[in-house]
Amino acid sequence: MPVITIEAAKLTNEQKRMLVNELTASASNIMNIPEQAFFVFVKENERENIGVAGQLLADRDENTL
Amino acid sequence: MPVITIEAAKLTNEQKRMLVNELTASASNIMNIPEQAFFVFVKENERENIGVAGQLLADRDENTL
Amino acid sequence: MPVITIEAAKLTNEQKRMLVNELTASASNIMNIPEQAFFVFVKENERENIGVAGQLLADRDENTL
Amino acid sequence: MPVITIEAAKLTNEQKRMLVNELTASASNIMNIPEQAFFVFVKENERENIGVAGQLLADRDENTL
Amino acid sequence: MPVITIEAAKLTNEQKRMLVNELTASASNIMNIPEQAFFVFVKENERENIGVAGQLLADRDENTL
Amino acid sequence: MPVITIEAAKLTNEQKRMLVNELTASASNIMNIPEQAFFVFVKENERENIGVAGQLLADRDENTL
Repeated sequence: MPVITIEAAKLTNEQKRMLVNELTASASNIMNIPEQAFFVFVKENERENIGVAGQLLADRDENTL
Repeated sequence: MPVITIEAAKLTNEQKRMLVNELTASASNIMNIPEQAFFVFVKENERENIGVAGQLLADRDENTL
Repeated sequence: MPVITIEAAKLTNEQKRMLVNELTASASNIMNIPEQAFFVFVKENERENIGVAGQLLADRDENTL
Repeated sequence: MPVITIEAAKLTNEQKRMLVNELTASASNIMNIPEQAFFVFVKENERENIGVAGQLLADRDENTL
Repeated sequence: MPVITIEAAKLTNEQKRMLVNELTASASNIMNIPEQAFFVFVKENERENIGVAGQLLADRDENTL
Repeated sequence: MPVITIEAAKLTNEQKRMLVNELTASASNIMNIPEQAFFVFVKENERENIGVAGQLLADRDENTL
């Protein structure tokens, strides 16, 4: 039943694969719940849809995360 | 005021229409709140953005949900 | 894998039981995905944590929803 | 640490810029937390993914919000 | 239809009242949508349920936000 | 900026501490973003607020997750 959601900017498929794999494995181990019970949603947001410190990420230099 | 959100993979517009209609009708009836007060958000996720049992859905065979 | 979340005010356990049962059954049927694959989270919010039309629900008369 | 998420239909970049700026400024002031600590996610939804009063927004006339 | 959710630590009712009022007013003005169409959910989280920089907020000194 | 949210049943503070620490460390490493930029929200749900396979978790035997 646990559901993990990660809100981020754009990611590669390999990063998404690793996130799903590693976050599920860690949480499964800590919560003592089998991996089969976990869902993960990776939410990729455009930089103009993310605000940090009152500014659009798209308006800040590329390396700001 | 109630808000229903459904996280899923890709759906047809007809499925989305039926989900909004039926979920609102059921919840309205159970909660004794008029349908006008309900919002529904249907969140469609790419299969490479969904993890099940530690794997990307995109890496599992097509029929896995 | 689908996950349904409903944001509402306080509900009885019977209402939550019916919501989980009926919303799952409807969505399962519409999406052609077995009920076993569905998670539902019922999020109960205090009236002073809900805003409608710019006002706290707690500041509006009891019947406002 | 506060995170503000706004679920809406399509918006212009200028609207998103103003939302991030003004919502962060207001919340920072009210909560007495510096703007640097705030994240904002603007979630744009297609009209066929939003339900109001049991209907898809896409099935209602353009001015319905 | 827009829904604003703010994830934060504990707040006073007066702060919640002001957040609902001001965030709705700003967003209504920017999005050109009447205030009546807005829902706001204020999500208060215990400090031991919030992580910042890999630590529980409860494990960091009181002024950390 | 990344935000990780985990929806679960009741957890101990030690489990929450480990989840925040390990999920942040893994995601930071995979996404090449410093841990300082991460927020985590651990959402604990009562068993009567969680539905699995159309049933309240509270109505299923204790070991069901």
